Amino acid sequence: MEELERVYRHIDEHLDEHIERVRRLIQQPSVSQTGEGVIECAEMLKDWLLNLGCSHVELAEPEYFWPIIYGEYNAGAEKTLIIYGMYDVQPVEPELWDYPPFEARVVERPPFKRVLIGRGAINTKGPMAAFLNAFESIQQAAGELPVNLIFVFEGEEERGSVSMPKFIRDYEQRLKRADGVYFPICSQDRNGLARPSLGSEGILYIELETNGSLWGRGPTQFGVHGGLKRILDSPAWRHIKMLSTLVSDDGNKVEIEGWYDDIVVPTEEDLRLLREGYRKSTPAVEVFDPEILKEMLKVKCFKYDLEKPEDILREMLFSTSFNLDGIWGGWTGPGTKTLLPHKVVSKHNIRFVPKQDIDDLFRKIRAHLDKHGYKDVALRKLAGYPWALVDYKNPVAESLYDVFEEFGVKYTIYPPVANPTLTSPAWPAYVFAGEPLKLPIAGGALGHGGLAHSPNEYIVIEGCEAKYGYIYGLDGVEKSMASVLYHFAQR
Amino acid sequence: MEELERVYRHIDEHLDEHIERVRRLIQQPSVSQTGEGVIECAEMLKDWLLNLGCSHVELAEPEYFWPIIYGEYNAGAEKTLIIYGMYDVQPVEPELWDYPPFEARVVERPPFKRVLIGRGAINTKGPMAAFLNAFESIQQAAGELPVNLIFVFEGEEERGSVSMPKFIRDYEQRLKRADGVYFPICSQDRNGLARPSLGSEGILYIELETNGSLWGRGPTQFGVHGGLKRILDSPAWRHIKMLSTLVSDDGNKVEIEGWYDDIVVPTEEDLRLLREGYRKSTPAVEVFDPEILKEMLKVKCFKYDLEKPEDILREMLFSTSFNLDGIWGGWTGPGTKTLLPHKVVSKHNIRFVPKQDIDDLFRKIRAHLDKHGYKDVALRKLAGYPWALVDYKNPVAESLYDVFEEFGVKYTIYPPVANPTLTSPAWPAYVFAGEPLKLPIAGGALGHGGLAHSPNEYIVIEGCEAKYGYIYGLDGVEKSMASVLYHFAQR
Repeated sequence: MEELERVYRHIDEHLDEHIERVRRLIQQPSVSQTGEGVIECAEMLKDWLLNLGCSHVELAEPEYFWPIIYGEYNAGAEKTLIIYGMYDVQPVEPELWDYPPFEARVVERPPFKRVLIGRGAINTKGPMAAFLNAFESIQQAAGELPVNLIFVFEGEEERGSVSMPKFIRDYEQRLKRADGVYFPICSQDRNGLARPSLGSEGILYIELETNGSLWGRGPTQFGVHGGLKRILDSPAWRHIKMLSTLVSDDGNKVEIEGWYDDIVVPTEEDLRLLREGYRKSTPAVEVFDPEILKEMLKVKCFKYDLEKPEDILREMLFSTSFNLDGIWGGWTGPGTKTLLPHKVVSKHNIRFVPKQDIDDLFRKIRAHLDKHGYKDVALRKLAGYPWALVDYKNPVAESLYDVFEEFGVKYTIYPPVANPTLTSPAWPAYVFAGEPLKLPIAGGALGHGGLAHSPNEYIVIEGCEAKYGYIYGLDGVEKSMASVLYHFAQR
Repeated sequence: MEELERVYRHIDEHLDEHIERVRRLIQQPSVSQTGEGVIECAEMLKDWLLNLGCSHVELAEPEYFWPIIYGEYNAGAEKTLIIYGMYDVQPVEPELWDYPPFEARVVERPPFKRVLIGRGAINTKGPMAAFLNAFESIQQAAGELPVNLIFVFEGEEERGSVSMPKFIRDYEQRLKRADGVYFPICSQDRNGLARPSLGSEGILYIELETNGSLWGRGPTQFGVHGGLKRILDSPAWRHIKMLSTLVSDDGNKVEIEGWYDDIVVPTEEDLRLLREGYRKSTPAVEVFDPEILKEMLKVKCFKYDLEKPEDILREMLFSTSFNLDGIWGGWTGPGTKTLLPHKVVSKHNIRFVPKQDIDDLFRKIRAHLDKHGYKDVALRKLAGYPWALVDYKNPVAESLYDVFEEFGVKYTIYPPVANPTLTSPAWPAYVFAGEPLKLPIAGGALGHGGLAHSPNEYIVIEGCEAKYGYIYGLDGVEKSMASVLYHFAQR
């Protein structure tokens, strides 16, 4: 494509400016947990979109915390793509960073000649700015975009995208005009292997609390002397007994009635994709190395002593889990304070899969507690959203595969329900994939970054060779994003 | 007794000096956990004993932390009494006190006209100084003491009296000459009712830890992303399952094999004492008011819905308990961090009764864990000592009853294994009551104080009327202690 070649050349020629624009977006804090700089960042993006020629940009009123930037760009094209982005970032612990987290410094970090260090560098303000650079490059080098765009940039992804469902309802008529959703993020891992983001598993995060006040037994308002256990009931022991009814002795099977009833994964096709891949992708079972995971996590074995890549992948992608994330109660300091606690709390993160339903699972937990005599135990939903089942053959995803193939990048496609390496961002795919929009979706591009949520978060600016091929720098990120638009326009 | 009358008069006439001496001892910090002032306090007491005419005083080398002050006073009397005392105190949180904790200020605290506020005021440097005042008053008013004394003042009571067993072995020949042990502390509660200290229950404090490193499964060195529960075992769930095997569903019965085998309490005599009292004491069942306990602890009911005073007392005094004092692991902060913890720890305080054996119980816990497949779970003993069975008819105790009757104080005697209100100090009675000394023991005197271990710890300096009779001030404390020595000499 002649046009795309011109775009690539334009990117190469303006790379220094583009790096500066990426830096500028990252330099603007936007911490959704604390509110630091969020509004300023939203305004900055609104101006940016207006400057790029969007016909309409607004800060949509969020249901909970921060505005969602809605923008429309009309290229007079046949197809329209929603560009989903998140402009909020996680809090920083400045003392743990090698450089100020909002300075966005570009430094050498072997094996990379240049990386940009900063909060949001990879998750996901770096790729977001790269997309806007690519957008501008197409305008300037090719005259006009091959597709119309609708921008949806939310500021609450790190808080669970809680305002998105209402936004989708409010903007349904406008969003319905789109033919697909594209999430411009970097897909390459440290080995250079790319993995597109498709659907996601469902997440439910709950808290359970047993306390004497609700129970009506044992100490009710404060912990009392531990010697009083001789005459008092213990809410702490009750919590232990209650928890132990939830899972099997090995901790791996959920013992709640009907928990596994509605599961429809893996399908035959899911398993075939794992084993055989699709198009020129590498089958996941070929590139999945359990030993690397063991070394990274410092584990000696997987549950059920799984050893075969396919079996491990199957659990990672298609199983539901009921995790005990944290528990606390009573005296947790040094020494031997004797205390009969009046309450114990535990946190639990549940991962679920199609077609389990988040509300139904929540009800089943409640019903289990009630049935086992724990009506008094408090069950609180802290966060959660449903799974998103995304067809890996959809036109946005196919466009992304086109790009990987065009650039000679090795890639693998996981069946679309989970995020098995836990290193690329989870995202609220369900708001687009589910009712009422039911749009095809894909996320990804060339490029690599890491340490999302951690100190020294980075994105690679200048790439290098790696185990599975070349890791692209910022120019590759932008070129591949531009290319996705062209491929999508032609499908 | 003419002599004792002179002693009482001497105490009345020198009360202001005596208060100052009590203050001076409390003003000297002696925090055994931190070491603050402990040696200085030991030296101060050594000098005090030498000044009182002890023929031999030494700071016995402790096995663990702080010296035990050993002193001998020879009155040329027929009988010898060991005076046990503890000169160490709990740490302070100065910001929570109304007055500096080591100032020992004397203030009005209704209903008391004068109380002394300070760390150690009641537990137990206040009563210890009062005893030394009484000792001196006898010398000065009566010429000589009616009994020989051996002083054993330890500096590690708040750390579990860990050096005492070795001290007893080292000093066995000298301690064997004694006819009994007296612990000079105040016995009256807020209602004016007195309760002598006799034996004590046994205590075992343990920690249990499940971790992936010992188990060889799940995350071993650090918590990993909670989503990995899909492929990894969970040490946290394992800890819950392990704990749930330890007690019955209601949390009240210990499910460890042989746990209840060796229990010999309550005897018929124990129960008769509860119901009928002894000498002029008031039977415990008559003065025990479950409603006061409910109000104080903010509980609605006791375990098994016990309502009758005798049944509640029976559990408080004669039952063994396995308490869950605290538990922690994983993410315990706000929000929804998803984490698969690599370990969970819980603390447990076990109360046991004659003739359960502390080492045997520890072994039974280990055996239970092993038998149920939890060989990898770490079991640590943090503290503990055996029960002490003390005959309530022994001559030291009888001397104390004599004093209560002489002063017209209402008193009640609990069977000698436990400390049911948990407000008077537990103490290592076992080192004297058990092998090799097997001495008769009692602790107590007139007087009242409270808030041991807490801010604003106090001892009453000037008494007042209360529900069950007069609460004595410092003069009464000293007089009653002097009187105990005379009554003991005559028995």
